[in-house]
Amino acid sequence: MAIQHPYLLFLGDAPDQLAAKTAQGIAHWRPDWCVGQLSLEGCKADLGLPEMTLEAAREAGAKTLVIGVANRGGVFSESWITVLEQALLLGFDLAAGLHNRLADVPVLKAAAEQHGRQLFDVRHPDRDFEVASGKKRSGRRILAVGTDCSVGKMYTALALEKEMKARDMKVDFRATGQTGILIAGSGVSIDAVVADFISGAVEYLSPANDVDHWDIVEGQGSLFHASFAGVSMGLLHGAQPDALILCHEPTRPHMRGLPDYPLPTLSACIDANLAAARLTNPKVHFIGIAVNTSQMHDSAIEAYLRRLEDEFELPTVDPFREGVKPLVDRLQ
Amino acid sequence: MAIQHPYLLFLGDAPDQLAAKTAQGIAHWRPDWCVGQLSLEGCKADLGLPEMTLEAAREAGAKTLVIGVANRGGVFSESWITVLEQALLLGFDLAAGLHNRLADVPVLKAAAEQHGRQLFDVRHPDRDFEVASGKKRSGRRILAVGTDCSVGKMYTALALEKEMKARDMKVDFRATGQTGILIAGSGVSIDAVVADFISGAVEYLSPANDVDHWDIVEGQGSLFHASFAGVSMGLLHGAQPDALILCHEPTRPHMRGLPDYPLPTLSACIDANLAAARLTNPKVHFIGIAVNTSQMHDSAIEAYLRRLEDEFELPTVDPFREGVKPLVDRLQ
Repeated sequence: MAIQHPYLLFLGDAPDQLAAKTAQGIAHWRPDWCVGQLSLEGCKADLGLPEMTLEAAREAGAKTLVIGVANRGGVFSESWITVLEQALLLGFDLAAGLHNRLADVPVLKAAAEQHGRQLFDVRHPDRDFEVASGKKRSGRRILAVGTDCSVGKMYTALALEKEMKARDMKVDFRATGQTGILIAGSGVSIDAVVADFISGAVEYLSPANDVDHWDIVEGQGSLFHASFAGVSMGLLHGAQPDALILCHEPTRPHMRGLPDYPLPTLSACIDANLAAARLTNPKVHFIGIAVNTSQMHDSAIEAYLRRLEDEFELPTVDPFREGVKPLVDRLQ
Repeated sequence: MAIQHPYLLFLGDAPDQLAAKTAQGIAHWRPDWCVGQLSLEGCKADLGLPEMTLEAAREAGAKTLVIGVANRGGVFSESWITVLEQALLLGFDLAAGLHNRLADVPVLKAAAEQHGRQLFDVRHPDRDFEVASGKKRSGRRILAVGTDCSVGKMYTALALEKEMKARDMKVDFRATGQTGILIAGSGVSIDAVVADFISGAVEYLSPANDVDHWDIVEGQGSLFHASFAGVSMGLLHGAQPDALILCHEPTRPHMRGLPDYPLPTLSACIDANLAAARLTNPKVHFIGIAVNTSQMHDSAIEAYLRRLEDEFELPTVDPFREGVKPLVDRLQ
């Protein structure tokens, strides 16, 4: 799976900005890959990119039309399909991270075959994997783990990639979720892999590399999430991380989607991740804490970050507000 | 998935007794379900059951022909297919726990449809699952966990079921692997479920029940197996066990299939399983240790079991040699 860029970002008839969250992530982290946006009538989302027709975007070099918007009720509306089919005809590949598949829409499948174009359904792995070998491989690896789901693990990973690239370090972001895959142009949607192959898929995703090369593996879920901890555990073992970063959102009343489950303490989360990660890399250690402060009062943030820093003796940042320089300093 | 019994056990042209291990497990644990065995020319396995033709087995009441033998190189030989097709024609359902599917053999698929029979490929889940809710459900649950794969977890679970039934306790064995499913007649091959739904599939497999009812959930893998720990973790969370049993094989030089990985200590394995299991059931505790002594010198066994019993203050048994009475005593 290697999605060609530049992209034209398809926003469809997004009812609000949140529905176009995926497109927003791509535009934020890969501005150079995005030639423009394409909205349909009634679209309420705007990425601030030039609004382009399919034809204009092709002339500007776009190779893939990326569906960066959630579809309503899991169905593709007729208005979408007309545009997507037209895109294939004009020479675009299509990429989407939706639950339902582009390849399951007969007219799109037929058009892709007829015009020799590719359909990327990035939520659905397009290959089989081996069982993990557990063998140590060369190169170094970072993994962001969380107290909960959706606490900023992907954001932190991409902020690290940006900072490390700025310092001319050898680095790759290895995507394990659909938005991450569209941002990276490749990856494995790890929660859609057959259970036996979770760790094996991560070994495939982050192969042996130069000894001074870093893979930043995108984390998923949390060892403390009762629905998804198996995925987090398999990902942790397959990644064999040298460096861990703990991601946290301090205002959450309970684990995401599980009203009966309180969040773990940061200390418990650090201990559990270290204990599990040592199985495949005994030298693993935490290099910092990344806090998602979006729901906190401005006045409380600085004191909170400094308190964690003191308590855990780890650089503590909000990647969104201030970047991740102290984490990369610690890495170096 | 509910496989009808009685069974006729198909041994094919098994090259040795080990190749018919699945059939042997079924014959051992469900003798009342097995009317006979069917061998082809060259078969080197024998379960000690009456050798029967398809016709004779049908007359004796058999409803399902169970393929209790591993096929060579993942292909069904012509000699197998002729017999399997004939079985469908005579009114048998077919059940198999192989990697490749009966339903992928066109002639079998067609014959099953034509004669209204079912094909059970128990290694492949035949339905979708929900994401785990983590909600506490009524009834009580036992789970056997292991220091490694293939250390006797299924055997221990089935020995528990037998002993608890003998004591008129309300109990069900909940199968999570292919042999277990053929023995139980139903279940979910948990390592073949999509990663996101591991825990959810176990919640489905072991639903709410009477408060004095016990589910014995078949364990898989080990939290210390670098290839499969994600499955073990998700299974543990979904099972929400009240009682755990630690299964161990003391002579193993390293984790199965992983020469670089030593076995964990029993103490580490107890601690890790308790820590993880407490997430979904804070009251979980170990009720005993089950040791697979098949590779030990007879003279060393008794002292070894008593040493573990003293060290961990838990009843310690070899289920194969002496059953599991002390474990059920502790449970009661």
